[in-house]
Order: sequence, then structure tokens, then C-alpha cells
Amino acid sequence: MNEGAKAEATAARILARCAELARCTETPGAICRTFLSLAMDEAHALLRRWAVEAGMTVQLDRAGNFIASTKAAEDTPRLMIGSHLDTVPDAGAYDGVLGVLLGLAIAEAQSECGLGIDVVGFSDEEGVRFGTPFIGSKSMTGRLTAELLGRRDGAGVTAREALDAFAKARPDAVSTGLPQGVRGYLEFHIEQGPVLESEGLALGVVTKIAGQSRGVLTFVGRAGHAGTTPMVQRQDALAAAAEWIGRVEEIAHGAEGLVATVGQISAEPNAVNVIAAGAKCSLDVRHAEDAVRTRALSEIVRAAEEIAARRGVRCGWSETHTEAAVPMDAAMIAMVEQAVERAGHPVRRMASGAGHDAMVLAPHVPSGMIFLRCPGGLSHHPDEAVLAGDLAAAFKVGLLFLDEFERAWSAGERRTSA
Amino acid sequence: MNEGAKAEATAARILARCAELARCTETPGAICRTFLSLAMDEAHALLRRWAVEAGMTVQLDRAGNFIASTKAAEDTPRLMIGSHLDTVPDAGAYDGVLGVLLGLAIAEAQSECGLGIDVVGFSDEEGVRFGTPFIGSKSMTGRLTAELLGRRDGAGVTAREALDAFAKARPDAVSTGLPQGVRGYLEFHIEQGPVLESEGLALGVVTKIAGQSRGVLTFVGRAGHAGTTPMVQRQDALAAAAEWIGRVEEIAHGAEGLVATVGQISAEPNAVNVIAAGAKCSLDVRHAEDAVRTRALSEIVRAAEEIAARRGVRCGWSETHTEAAVPMDAAMIAMVEQAVERAGHPVRRMASGAGHDAMVLAPHVPSGMIFLRCPGGLSHHPDEAVLAGDLAAAFKVGLLFLDEFERAWSAGERRTSA
Repeated sequence: MNEGAKAEATAARILARCAELARCTETPGAICRTFLSLAMDEAHALLRRWAVEAGMTVQLDRAGNFIASTKAAEDTPRLMIGSHLDTVPDAGAYDGVLGVLLGLAIAEAQSECGLGIDVVGFSDEEGVRFGTPFIGSKSMTGRLTAELLGRRDGAGVTAREALDAFAKARPDAVSTGLPQGVRGYLEFHIEQGPVLESEGLALGVVTKIAGQSRGVLTFVGRAGHAGTTPMVQRQDALAAAAEWIGRVEEIAHGAEGLVATVGQISAEPNAVNVIAAGAKCSLDVRHAEDAVRTRALSEIVRAAEEIAARRGVRCGWSETHTEAAVPMDAAMIAMVEQAVERAGHPVRRMASGAGHDAMVLAPHVPSGMIFLRCPGGLSHHPDEAVLAGDLAAAFKVGLLFLDEFERAWSAGERRTSA
Repeated sequence: MNEGAKAEATAARILARCAELARCTETPGAICRTFLSLAMDEAHALLRRWAVEAGMTVQLDRAGNFIASTKAAEDTPRLMIGSHLDTVPDAGAYDGVLGVLLGLAIAEAQSECGLGIDVVGFSDEEGVRFGTPFIGSKSMTGRLTAELLGRRDGAGVTAREALDAFAKARPDAVSTGLPQGVRGYLEFHIEQGPVLESEGLALGVVTKIAGQSRGVLTFVGRAGHAGTTPMVQRQDALAAAAEWIGRVEEIAHGAEGLVATVGQISAEPNAVNVIAAGAKCSLDVRHAEDAVRTRALSEIVRAAEEIAARRGVRCGWSETHTEAAVPMDAAMIAMVEQAVERAGHPVRRMASGAGHDAMVLAPHVPSGMIFLRCPGGLSHHPDEAVLAGDLAAAFKVGLLFLDEFERAWSAGERRTSA
């Protein structure tokens, strides 16, 4: 079997495995697999079988992260490849899972490279169970906070209680922490956006994960009878919000790569014949450069204030969430680019607008990410898809990346020992 | 007691009676009095006592309309004065009730005029119980449709069943129909808007009741990830709706007296990090000239289509309700103006943006309306208010109107008998 045929067969096997994992679900007829659930246990059982068949050692850590490791001499540099195994409710079959299965396929395929490989399936990235994301990768990097551990799920169980119960039930679970000897983290993930598809590209090289600001903008005007209040005597909160939404769009168009979204809206009293006394809008602003994002946010809030003042209504901004941009490691990016180029694909650098485990790991281990084209830009949806050809391409790039990584490390080691 | 002192005392009595009627409610601690309710029975009992004390004859018709009549020779021309006795939930104390109590006060005060007076309290104008307004005045003018009679209240009872049960329980109720010999209908009502207050005026002369168009405008775009979908690749239904709301406002500003309101809005999926796939807005357009209203409505719908096409989203307009403008009777308007002028007030002609019983009666009997200033423009609200001085002015205008009306009719009768 030649290289191309091998990659195609591997892609087909990964797709079949994605379908098998999709059957590990909490919701009959749909895909939903949350942190430390029985559905997650089922997924681990499948992954364990595949990893053991490939001659790997399998462990769970005390946060429910799945770790399959190739055998290698103790001081061999190791590469971690992975993503997350949990899903949103009514999810697609590829978000997260794909990165774990690509990791497993790459580990299986490289029997004679001079690296150790740890394939990791994080236990929580979507944050469905405790309403806060990245519990898996945060556990592994020692970043669980008291606030996070105190959060309760729908049944009133705290994250700390859930983790303690899991550890008690799994006395063989290893301590959380980065696997020994890990020198880099590589994550494959579907793009979850339409950029690669619109440019006809299979793969993207992630250089940064965008920072984000989220919050709520509230306008308070004055209710009035829709028939008896002349236009010039209105203090219409919804009309103010509508004007502001237009400005949010304009401001976002003003800087390359900037996105700003008002996805939620409500009006009070929300009646057909009453001028709105109140309007509440969500705001989500993201950019790979923090300065661009914070400047845009200020401009957006100023626009609301200007609109409110002119219309005789009040407005208030309340920030609910802010996250700085996280750059990927320069050396990792360079190696990914080398691998993409060697595989015969154009190098398309891009920032990720969505958060990923690589964002949590990046401050602790040199991290890189590769995006796969996402048909229709669709994710978090049952119709989420991935093209077999793109998967084969990602697999080949993964193998070439191993080669780059091994060369860099043996050169590095040589330098160190010289 | 001089004229002014008498008017002031009358105003004080009307305010006290409004407060007494406000205690006839279905909702402890709030005002709510709906069609054929026990609270309405209580209100009728109070009104009956007051009317009988004034020497009037009291009847209920089979639609629950309250009618108190002064005695007069059979061929004496009669004037009907009234408004409605039902309220919205959590209402104020004056909307409707005030017009009935002013009617009663005017009937009490005019012992020696050559007119008969019928004070009417309509049983349903707000339309709370059956979700459709004007059941009282529509019954009286023979305008109940099968559709209306088939409507069900919250308990599943149809309007027809409710009316039949009421008639059975009240064998003394008279047939519905305009009282014998009625030559005109006069309605006092709070403005329910801010115009008179902003111009420092006590009273307004209603020349027309505005027509209205209501409906729902829907935009359908495409959901997308708020972080990963570039601005230029979005089909954001909520951004389209926001732009359209701005255009609705602009178009309404474009014609004198035109009002257009988007009071209701919803977005789908309404999530902070998802670009809206759908947005739904209510629209309410009113103007005293039907041609102005329908032209504005076309322009508003065209604007939606233009915005949708430019943004690559779809839009749909669905009209839910349309009502032509109803002019008040020219002779009645002239007599109201005469009375207002004789009482020493400036004549402020105005269209009513809200619907009133006079709108239903106008095709059947010459009708006129007088608005009272509405502090803060507030109505359908517990804080609804009326100024005692304005009430005294309305009372004086009412008496002067009787004089005008009587003169017109005796002149008319003379002409007829000449």
C-alpha cells in the first residue's frame, strides 16, 4: 500500500471510529457526552481497546482525562497529541473527538520514530456540566480554581465532589499533571467556521487563539402607547438597541479579523402596542490582538452611551467574561508550517475565534494547532461534518510534523549535550 | 354655589367615584375588571345606586352594557354619553370609567334641558377576556361576527356561551341595540398619550380615530459561531432586524402624525455566542389617513426586503390586523369645538392613535370624542392619573355641548316640521 492509499484507509478508519464514539451518548438519538458521565466511560472503553491494540499503555488521570502512551526510553522527548472527548448537547461527531482519533492514528503509524507520543482525550472542554469550560486541561495544568471547584451541576453536585467521587471509584487513576517528558502539544480540530471552506483549503495553521470579551448592554427608556405617543416624544429602548446593534456591526467591520456579535436580545414589556421601556442585548467581541479587542469594546460601549444620550434613554454595560488572546508557540507553528508545506498544501495561517484546550496548555507546554476544513462552517450541530480527503491530509501532515519535531529535538538534545 | 365651584365639586365627586369603582376588581391589590365578571357586577351595583339617586332609569342589555337614562317625552332627541367599564389587567382607575362617570355627572346636572340622556358603560372594550376588543359596543350596533362569538376565553368558554349564560341569568336584561331616539354619541376619554400635556392643554377635540396595521416581520439568516465566522461571511438575522427597526423609525418620522412601533422582538437561537439564524419583530403602524398608513406600510416592507436581499437573508411579512381610520361626525366635532371655545379653552384638534368605542359607534350614530390630558402620557398602568381641574373643565364643556346639541336638534326638528 502506498502513502496515499494508507492515508485514505486511515481517514476511513478515523471516520468509522468517530461514528462508533458517537454512539457513546447520554441522549438516545443524539450525541451528548459530558464530564465524568457513563457515556464518557463507554467512550474510554472503546479508545482503550484501540490504543491497546496499537501497543500503547492506557491510563486515566484523576480528572478523567484519557492518556494513551507509546513506549519509549525514559529520556526520549515526548509529544502530546489530543483534544477533548466531551460534547455539547445534540452535538456533531467530530468536534474534539477528531483530534484524539487523529492522535491515535498518528501514534499507531509511527513505530520507528525516535519520540514518545501521548494521545490525550480531555474529559471536559465544552463546560456543559458545570457551566465552565476546560476542566480537563485545567486539571492537567494545575489551573483549577476554588471558584471552579465550587460550581454545582444540575443535580447540585460540586465539581470538587464530582472529582473526589471519580477518584474514589477509580483507585487506578493517576495524578493529574502533564505526562512526564512532554515537550510539545499538538491539537487537530475542526475549524468550526467557514474560512477554510470559502478559500478551498483543507488545513489551517493556528497562530493564536483570539481573546474575547462578553457582557450585557441594557437600554432603559420609557414605555408608551404605540398609537398615541408621537415619534418625537418617544424614549424607545428597542429602537436605541437596534441603532446600537448597527454600530456594533460597523465597528467590527472596521478592523481585520475583528468579530462582534449580538446574539441575544429581549425587550420589555415586549408587547406589540407598547413602546419598549427596556432592551437587553448580549455582546461577544473577539480578536487575536488584545489591544484591538479592548479598543473595539470601548468604542462599542461609547457608541451605546452616545446613542442613549441622544435618545434620552439610559444605558449600562456589564462585562461578564474576559479572556486574553493566547499565542501558539512560534517553534511549533514553524514546524506545523513545514509539515503542511512538505505535504503539498498551502500554508494558511489563521487565528482561532473559538477557545480550545491548546489555549489552556500553551502557557505550560509549547503548543500548536491545526484546523481542518468544516463543511458549511457548521459545528455544535448534528450535521457537523469533515471531508475524508482533509482527514487524510491532516494525517499525513501529522506524520511529517513528527519528523520535524523529532529533528528539532534531536538537534536540540545534541546542542544540549555538545 | 357658582358655576366654577360646582364644577370643582363635581370633579371631586367623579374622582371619588373612580376610586370606589377601582375597588371592584378581580385581582386583590390591583385593578382588573373584565367582561361579564363578578367585579363588573359590583361596578354595576355602584353605578345603579348613583344613577337611581339622580332619578335615572337603569337597565343592563343582554351583552352586559350598563344604560342609565333620564326621563323625557317619547319623541325628545336623546344623546348617549359613555365609555367602557372593563379594564386591562393591573389597570389605572380612569381609562373608560372616567367617560361613564362624566356622563353620569352631566346627566345629573342638566335637569331642565330639552334632551334625553343615556349614560352607557360598555361591558368590553379592552378585549382582555376573549382576546378581541369592543364586544360591548359591537353588540349594541349588531356587529358581533361568528368568528368573534366562537372565540374562547382562558377557561375554554366561547363568547357566545358567555353571552347566553349572562342572558339566562338576567331575564330582566333588555335586547341589545342603540337606545331608542339616540341622535348622537359623545365619549370622554383620557388621551393615553403625551400630546396635550406637552402642549399644556386640558382638553383635545378628536376628529378621527387612526387606522392601524399590525403584523409580524421575520428575518431568516444563518446561525454561525460568533468567534469563528468573519463579519463578511455572516447572514445575521438580528443585525438585519436591527437595521430594519432603524428604517421603520425613519419612515415614521417622514410623515406628520404617523407612528410606527416595533415593540416585540425575539431572536433564534438567542445565544450569546451564536449568530442569530432568525429574528421576529412585531410592527404596529397608525395614521388618521389610511392612504398615509398603507403607503408607509409598503415602504416599511420594501425596506425589509431591500435589507434582507443585501444581507443574503430572507424576510417575510405577515399582516395580523388591519383597521381603517374612522372619522368622527363633522357636526358633532363642530359642536364639541363650540363648547370647548365657550368654556374658554383653546380648540386642539387631534386624531386618536388608540381605538375607542366611538370608533365602533361612528358608522351607526353621529359620534364625537373629547380627550382629557393624561399626566405623563401614562395609561394601562396603576399610576394612570387625571387632573381635577381638567375634569372640571370637561364637565363644563359637557354641559355646554348639551346646549349646542339641543339647539342643533330643536333647529333641526323645526326644519323637519317646517
